[in-house]
Formats: sequence, C-alpha cells, structure tokens
Amino acid sequence: MFGARCLRLVLRHCSSVPCPKRVVSPKVLRVEEALEVKEPTGQDIKVQGWVRSIRSQKDVLFLHINDGSSLESLQVVANPRLETRELTFGSSVEVQGKLTKSPHKRQNVELAAENIRVVGSCDVSTFPLKYKTHHPLDYLRQFPHVRCRSNVLSALLRVRSEATAAIHNFFKDQGYIHIHTPIITSNDCEGAGEVFQVEPAKWERKPEENPHFFNIPAFLTVSGQLHLEVMAGAFSKVFTFGPTFRADNSQSRKHLAEFYMVEAELSFVERLQDIMQVMEDLFKRVTEMVLSRCPHDVELFHRRLAPGQEAKLEQMLKSPFVTMSYTEAIDILKQTHQDFTYKPEWGQDLQSEHEKYLLQHCGETPLFVFNYPYDLKPFYMRDNEDGVHHTVAAVDLLVPGIGELCGGSIREDRPDFLQSRLQRLGLQDTYQWYIDLRRFGSTPHGGFGMGFERYLQCILGVENIKDVIPFPRFPHSCIL
Amino acid sequence: MFGARCLRLVLRHCSSVPCPKRVVSPKVLRVEEALEVKEPTGQDIKVQGWVRSIRSQKDVLFLHINDGSSLESLQVVANPRLETRELTFGSSVEVQGKLTKSPHKRQNVELAAENIRVVGSCDVSTFPLKYKTHHPLDYLRQFPHVRCRSNVLSALLRVRSEATAAIHNFFKDQGYIHIHTPIITSNDCEGAGEVFQVEPAKWERKPEENPHFFNIPAFLTVSGQLHLEVMAGAFSKVFTFGPTFRADNSQSRKHLAEFYMVEAELSFVERLQDIMQVMEDLFKRVTEMVLSRCPHDVELFHRRLAPGQEAKLEQMLKSPFVTMSYTEAIDILKQTHQDFTYKPEWGQDLQSEHEKYLLQHCGETPLFVFNYPYDLKPFYMRDNEDGVHHTVAAVDLLVPGIGELCGGSIREDRPDFLQSRLQRLGLQDTYQWYIDLRRFGSTPHGGFGMGFERYLQCILGVENIKDVIPFPRFPHSCIL
Repeated sequence: MFGARCLRLVLRHCSSVPCPKRVVSPKVLRVEEALEVKEPTGQDIKVQGWVRSIRSQKDVLFLHINDGSSLESLQVVANPRLETRELTFGSSVEVQGKLTKSPHKRQNVELAAENIRVVGSCDVSTFPLKYKTHHPLDYLRQFPHVRCRSNVLSALLRVRSEATAAIHNFFKDQGYIHIHTPIITSNDCEGAGEVFQVEPAKWERKPEENPHFFNIPAFLTVSGQLHLEVMAGAFSKVFTFGPTFRADNSQSRKHLAEFYMVEAELSFVERLQDIMQVMEDLFKRVTEMVLSRCPHDVELFHRRLAPGQEAKLEQMLKSPFVTMSYTEAIDILKQTHQDFTYKPEWGQDLQSEHEKYLLQHCGETPLFVFNYPYDLKPFYMRDNEDGVHHTVAAVDLLVPGIGELCGGSIREDRPDFLQSRLQRLGLQDTYQWYIDLRRFGSTPHGGFGMGFERYLQCILGVENIKDVIPFPRFPHSCIL
Repeated sequence: MFGARCLRLVLRHCSSVPCPKRVVSPKVLRVEEALEVKEPTGQDIKVQGWVRSIRSQKDVLFLHINDGSSLESLQVVANPRLETRELTFGSSVEVQGKLTKSPHKRQNVELAAENIRVVGSCDVSTFPLKYKTHHPLDYLRQFPHVRCRSNVLSALLRVRSEATAAIHNFFKDQGYIHIHTPIITSNDCEGAGEVFQVEPAKWERKPEENPHFFNIPAFLTVSGQLHLEVMAGAFSKVFTFGPTFRADNSQSRKHLAEFYMVEAELSFVERLQDIMQVMEDLFKRVTEMVLSRCPHDVELFHRRLAPGQEAKLEQMLKSPFVTMSYTEAIDILKQTHQDFTYKPEWGQDLQSEHEKYLLQHCGETPLFVFNYPYDLKPFYMRDNEDGVHHTVAAVDLLVPGIGELCGGSIREDRPDFLQSRLQRLGLQDTYQWYIDLRRFGSTPHGGFGMGFERYLQCILGVENIKDVIPFPRFPHSCIL
C-alpha cells in the first residue's frame, strides 16, 4: 500500500514520544524474583515496593519490602544514615543495592542498600493498617481500599488469581471452549430466584416509547446454564466463568449479591457419573495447582485462620468423593437420634444441619448427593422415570465446612417431556427457543456450576464469604 | 477422625451411583483429534457430532461430521444401507468405524463407518440454517440460539476462546495478578457516562426502610480502573478482564450495551511509553497466539468476509506502532485539504473521520495519539504541567477499520492536584477514598483498557460488533 518513500514521509510526521533523560540503571527485580536467586553474587539490582517493617539499630537499619509478588518480603540492610523521616511503615520505596547471601537462617538473600528513595510517604496516623498488628478480618472489611495491603488479603488475592488461571487451564486442556455467557438477560434460569432488574439510571424517552431500554424487562444473570446449553449444541464441551447475581436479602456467611460461578456443559452425556467425574477432577486438579503455585499463601490461612484445615484438605484430595442418593441420605438422617430443627422428610430440601450431619457421617469428605425429588428441582432437569414425576437426574456436591459447593444435572433433552412440564408451569412461550434446541439435532447433555467463592472458602478454611472476594456486595453494602 | 472400621461402615451406607450396563466400546475421539492422526491404521474409533453435509451415491454414502472442535469436518464413508430417514443435515449422530487414510487430496483421514446412530433428529423444514448456504451475518443474528452452529460463528467463538486464554496467559507470564473488579458499583468511573442502575426486580420493603437494596444507588460498572488502582497499591501489576456496560442509546456497529474490557494497571510507572509498550505487546503477542492456535478459523474470516485483511494484519504485527501527540495530530488534520464534517480544532475530540484520516496518513498501521487537552479528559489523568491545565498524560490506540481500540493514561498521583480538581467538580466527598490512596504510600502509576470485541473486529475484519459476541445486547434487543 505504502512504498518505502511514502513511509519515510509518514515517519517524519509521526514522531516518537519525547524520551526524558535516562541513565543506565540496575535491573528492577520483583521481590519474588529477588528471593528466588539461589546464589546471589552481589549483583546490582533495584526493588520497588512498600515498607512492611522498619527496625533501626545503632549500626544498621533493617527494612522489609513487599511488592505483592509473594507473601515473603525482601530484607534490606542499610547504613542508618539512609534513614529519613519519610521512610516509615506503609511508605512506597525504591531501593537500589547489591543482592547478597543473607547470614540469617530465615532468608537466603538480602539486599545491601546503597540508595533508598521514598516514592510516596504514608500518613501512618490515619492509615487503617497498623504496624506489627494482625488485624481481624471484620476490621479489614471496613477498608476495601487498603485491606489488600494486609498479609491475609494479599495472600487471598494471589490464591484467587492462581485458582482463576488453573480453572481456565483445566478446561482448556480438555478441549472445552470458553464462552462469555451474557450478564444482562431476559431469562431467569432458576425461575423463582430473586433477581436484579436493570434499566438506565437516567433515561430520557418520549411517552410513546417502550418503557424498557431493551424493550423487555432485563435482569442480571443468575446462571449461564441455559446459554451454555445453546453452545453445547455446537461445541461438545463448553464452560463459562463469570459473575452471577442474587437479590437475596440474606446476610449469611455463605451468600453474596454478586459472586462468581464456574459452569460447564457437556453434550453426548447420559450419565450423571460423567458430570460428577468432571466436578471431582476440577476440584482436585485446580486445588493441586493452587497448592503447588502458592504454598505459602495457602499455609498462612491454614496456620493463622483455620488450624487443622491442611489435614482436612489433604484428606479431600486423597480419597475418591463419596456418592449417595437423596433417598439414602434421607434414610440416614431419619435413622439417627440427632435432634434436627427441621425434621428430615422425603420430598423436602436438605437443610444446612442435614448436610452437616451427612458430611460427618461420611468422614468429612466431599459427598455427592444425587437423584432428587422431581418437585424440588427446576424444569430443565431430566426425569428419571422411576415413578410418576418421582426423581430427576440432579446432583449436589457437599463439602465440609461449606455445604453445597456445586450443583449439576442431566438436562431434559426430550422435547415432549420438556414441553409438557413448561406448559404446566405456564412458561411454554417464554422458553420456546429452549424447546426448539431439542428439535434440531439435540443430544443428551448435562452440566454443573461451582460457586467460586465457596470453593476458596473450602480450600482455605475462610469462615465468611466476604473475605474471599475483592469487593463484596451484599444487602445494605456496596462500598466503592 | 474415622478409623478403618468406621470408614467401612460409612462406605456401606454410601453406595456408588448405580452403573447401567456397559459394553467395551471404542475410544471416542473429537473431530479435531481424529483429523490430527497422521498415520491412520484402521483403528476402531467413535465420533460424536452434527451432520454438516450428506451425499448419497449409488454405492457409497458420504457424510461430514462436525463437533465444534475444529472448522474442518470429518469425512465419513459408509455403505448406503446405513442411511435412514432421520439421518439429515443438522441431526446429531454417533458414528463408529475404522479411521483410515483418505484417498482424497482434500483430507488426510476418513472414517469408514460400521455403525451410524442418529442421536437427535433435526426438523430440517423449520431449522433456521439451510443446507449448503452461506447465511449473511445479519440473518444469523436473528437466531442467537442456533447461529453458533454456522461455520462463521463457530469459528468466531473458537477465536474468542483462544484470545481469552491468550490474554490471561500474557499477563500471568509477566507476573500480573488477576483481579475480579466488581460489576455492581457505587462509583461511576467516567463521570458523565450513561450507566445502568440496579435494584431487585421484586422487592418487598417496609416504607421506613432505605429505598435502595445496597442503601445507595448502585450501577453496572463502566470500567474496573479505579478498583484496579486500589489493587495496584498492593500488587505492582494487576489486570482484569470482564464485562462492562453503557446505557448508550446508540445503534452503531462499534457499540454494545454489554461488552468486555481487558484492563491493566502498573505501579512505579512514570512514563506513558511504558504503558504504550504493554498495549503494543498485548496486541501483538495475543494476536500471534491466536494465529498459531486457530489459523483456519482466522483464515475463514479473511477469505470470506474481509479480503485483504490478512495482509493488513501482517503489517500491523510487523512494524512498531506509530506514535503522535494530539497536537501533532491536529496540525496534520488542519494541513490537509480533505473536507471534514467536523472542523479539526485544538481542544476538540477527534472524530471518527479524523481518526480514519490519521490512520491513512500513517500507512494503515496502529497509531498511538498521546497528550490530550486537559479539559477533554477525566479527573484521574495526570496533568503534564506544560501550561495551566494544558494537556494530560493520556493515550489512545487507534487501529485501522475500527478507530479507538485502547485508552490509557498516567494517573494523577499527587493528592493536592487530585483534590483541587475533584473539588472544582464537586466530587471531593464521593472520591475521598480515591484521594486517600495517594496518602498511604502512593506511587506514580498508570494503565489502560482495551475493548475486547473491538480487538476481535480488528484482527478478523468483522464489520459489526454484534457478530463477535455470543449474545449481543443493545438498545431494544436482549434476546434470550
């Protein structure tokens, strides 16, 4: 398109960004990289980060610098003359010096500082984080704009980032196609769910115009399942990993108004076991990946917040998950002498107390409960035909400390079964497109969803779901 | 916790899922896997997928089976006696047979069928996709529940899935922490943007209660930037990749009400060039990854929808992106004799026609325009102090065929500058937390956002943004 001569003309017009004066400077290493140097040889490096501790002795100044790349900080040793008034806990600094072998047992390397520059000072008196303090999680929750600078929350966010990557890789490695299912939708997958509605904040429209921006009422998604089913009709294996929403007026430690779900859907699958196998593999492989990628971060939680969790997690990873039908579960609950607030009864939902008992009963190992009563479950689950509308091919995965982590099912792929069920619910018109999917080369298929925050709670042993998401949203609270 | 005896007791209670009768069956291969077999030796395999073509001759029946794992279908050759009435275009099938070398030039392998089972029939008369037809994109858009079964949309979704993975890997490999920035927020990053508001669809509250579910008005995010800035104060490099929303009453081919943004934020960065370098690297490396992972899918677009796009893309990847200040850009626009609808004037936004001219002028290669007028840009961009409120350290990346693909800036990290600007805007109280970030060990920092759908439009040469997202949402339309 452009000849060489013409391109020169262009380049004359299009200057580079003016480059400020640069001096040859030592290599900037992340703290994680500096700590990983096995044989430090006094190489000249620069580290940028935040001061986590400062200890001034007569002959030497000790600093610990953290930049979020690892739980561990880098020890800096300096001549006390490098100390300034602005060099405090919480300040951001750039330290240049020689990376050397540390004489101390607790670390392999340390940075012998030649220059310390305070990049940004910290108003220690008003900074919500205090020096040498383990702040309780509910204290930190009040400061969503600084809590990520605490050890616990930064460890959490590194684990969350690794788990996110591991989930993407798990599915990708097995040939799943990733789908961005929509956030705004005119469907309400779960039917009776409490949903958020969406309209423009300020919307100037003429009186004769449609009252809705999208012409129809639109909601925030509660699940990507129905949209994944569309895609499973083109790609045999699909997954999504995104935000989902419930306008539930609950302050429970297991619920958020905005949370993340991992959902997968598989075509040409008839048996619930095949879905359960994917759930179990997902849990185990992602956890193993997280444990191998950030062992210190996970250990911080197990040591400081959830003693005993390490052994429990090991147990979960080691043995095959246990399986039990809903009917068996009810039998077990009925046979015990334990006093339940809700009496176990076939046809009723399992309550938290029931889940807890079943998990204890099975040795605190993850437990699949399958084949639930037809009337308890949504319209899209497959009738097992073990009686008139008796059970459906649904499965929940219960895990110790949490309860329900995943829910899945084989979907009703027989158009006549689906149509008559939707007709009884008065939803035939709304879901005509969904019935149509069964008319154009349908396949037996199924899938599941896993609550990502509950997963993090489970592996780390975190009590409150608000502490495993960067910015928690729940009734009466939407800070920042 | 449980001894061996006790565990046996448990296992007696917790039965396995009843396993239906199984026969030893041949290995199920995905179409992609079958096609990749270099030296087929007549191995017994099974393939599951959808019939893309069917051709019945006197002595032989030819089928093409696609399962979404690749653009190419697997050719099946069969005895005509295996043909049934239900074996039609669009039906789902399971084919068992021997994988053999194909005598035809166009493929390496073919499946000699021994058994063909129609899993789900297709009502061809009402199926919106027709046999041997290239459906126009605007026709397909009417059928979001089946369009993924067309060649073009399934290719698009494979590219989208690969690009998603490549973006995650690009940032992860460079030590960025992934952050799920919130979808529901009480902030409105861009200020004047048209935003969606969120409240429960049905909400029973007492008259004395707060009118808002979150106690304050809550909106769908227009950008994760401010939340990423929080995180960049704990981790030096962070990124997010999620949905963003605009309640913009625009039907343009470049706008959606729900779209995806890739956003990154870097601490200890003073120079706009460093941000531009990340943008250029992201574009080039992700594109190279996509080209290497799904060359045939990309080629389909270049061949069928955007002739000439392949050469243009090659050019974009080969040369360094061109840079030009806003002031230079205005000078160039003023010097030309071209008639613009909007007269170019320093202090005014660049219009599409201006962007288009500048891109032509620079040889249809990606173009960074930097240092925009202070009054054109949001409060968080850093004053260049090249005059009284003259320019800010902002940069836009313009690409051929699209216009603006990315926008970024160095952020105003000086609390006094930020405070006085917010004060003038009457926003000091709303953004007190944001000013506070600058008081507790702040660093010079900056970042950018890239529109993911525009990126896909750019590399594939797709005219309309509605064709590069699985379920497009725009004014008057929210199908499914």
